Amino acid sequence: LVLEYEGTRYHGWQIQDNGYTVQEALSDAIYKISGERTMPHGAGRTDAGVHALGQVASFLTNSRIPGERIADALNAYLPRNISVLDSRDVSLDFHPRKHARGKHYRYLVLNRSRRDVMFENRSWHYSAELDVEMMNKAGSTFVGTHDFTSFCASGHSVKTFERTIHKATWHRMGDLLVFDVEGSGFLYNMVRIMVGTLVDVGRGKIIDSDVRDILERKNRMLAGATAPADGLYMMKVFYNEEDYDTKLR
Amino acid sequence: LVLEYEGTRYHGWQIQDNGYTVQEALSDAIYKISGERTMPHGAGRTDAGVHALGQVASFLTNSRIPGERIADALNAYLPRNISVLDSRDVSLDFHPRKHARGKHYRYLVLNRSRRDVMFENRSWHYSAELDVEMMNKAGSTFVGTHDFTSFCASGHSVKTFERTIHKATWHRMGDLLVFDVEGSGFLYNMVRIMVGTLVDVGRGKIIDSDVRDILERKNRMLAGATAPADGLYMMKVFYNEEDYDTKLR
Repeated sequence: LVLEYEGTRYHGWQIQDNGYTVQEALSDAIYKISGERTMPHGAGRTDAGVHALGQVASFLTNSRIPGERIADALNAYLPRNISVLDSRDVSLDFHPRKHARGKHYRYLVLNRSRRDVMFENRSWHYSAELDVEMMNKAGSTFVGTHDFTSFCASGHSVKTFERTIHKATWHRMGDLLVFDVEGSGFLYNMVRIMVGTLVDVGRGKIIDSDVRDILERKNRMLAGATAPADGLYMMKVFYNEEDYDTKLR
Repeated sequence: LVLEYEGTRYHGWQIQDNGYTVQEALSDAIYKISGERTMPHGAGRTDAGVHALGQVASFLTNSRIPGERIADALNAYLPRNISVLDSRDVSLDFHPRKHARGKHYRYLVLNRSRRDVMFENRSWHYSAELDVEMMNKAGSTFVGTHDFTSFCASGHSVKTFERTIHKATWHRMGDLLVFDVEGSGFLYNMVRIMVGTLVDVGRGKIIDSDVRDILERKNRMLAGATAPADGLYMMKVFYNEEDYDTKLR
């Protein structure tokens, strides 16, 4: 499944005890169309309040509904803040997270003095003036393969903090500052800490060469604050076709 | 005040018994900054679910807060789906509805098969193919001074059903069909009935010359359905400066 959701009213992607999640909403819809209780796998565990325009999920079913028809079937039962854009049969061992070879995230900063009711819960409202050219310049520091320890929420253990970033750019679109970042994978809160740090550059609190220093010193305390979840959008997950397409295997 | 609001969670503009309204929310914020209980006048009574990007409202106060500072003061207390964009002192007899010499409304139709979670409650989701050029052509029928009885919710008595429309155009913006209509004033549900009728043109149920016929026959039953409130935006209210500016009087 390729799906989009407005994350404001969900406690993130992953099932948990104290709140309804996108994964559960999807599981409930799958139950309604198939009678089967199953928990779909997702490409990424978006946090509470984070949105998705291209999350990818998969699940195993005995349903006779053809793969391409699953999208419409699920949409008939899903809440209106979740929409399945596309569906297809994939090979049995396809896993949306393990096979992902990259992801594209976008972050929106609403940079004007007054709030915008239409971007409430969908952007980080930041009133002070920001130098988007400096932010863009500093963002390029992330491009390449680096140890991103400084840009990972502390207390998270992973095999390696090394990730490859292919693109990290800012551009202004009216009152919105748009951050696009693509990479092989992302650590916990990595995009939001990148944004918090680059906003520090934009307001002149630090300069672009400081970002390289922060990166090299591998210490979360040195980077900026974690930007709010509201502005983050999971845009796209990249795969090699042969990893999911049954015809190519 | 010039204000914007996301109307989804309000029972429209005007105070009523069975639900919280924008007017009340504004009244509550005025009370918090001034200690005065007053009900602001609005330029238009938007229905439940209708949005505004340029509603105009005024109120009488003994507060010593300068007119230009009222916006920030109110925003500190207003819910986050209402935002005051601008505020100023106006002449004592200014009335936002009575002095309005025109209004601009916009209507958004989301015209694609799958819903868009980001435009949920903010557009009319219409899946079937629509011919936007035909809709635009038919829309021009409304331009000029006409009796709009056919485009007014029945059971509403007004002095005259005559209104002047200056502009009524459709254009496509990706999956969105955008209807912009400007006029001297609008009858109850007028924009939404215009949209319902023009969508009938777009799907080929009626042709553009039928719209002229519907207009001339002055009968609500002949026009299309009332389009949902969700897609309607009050964009701007027009005034003659001398009607509000104390310096010009």
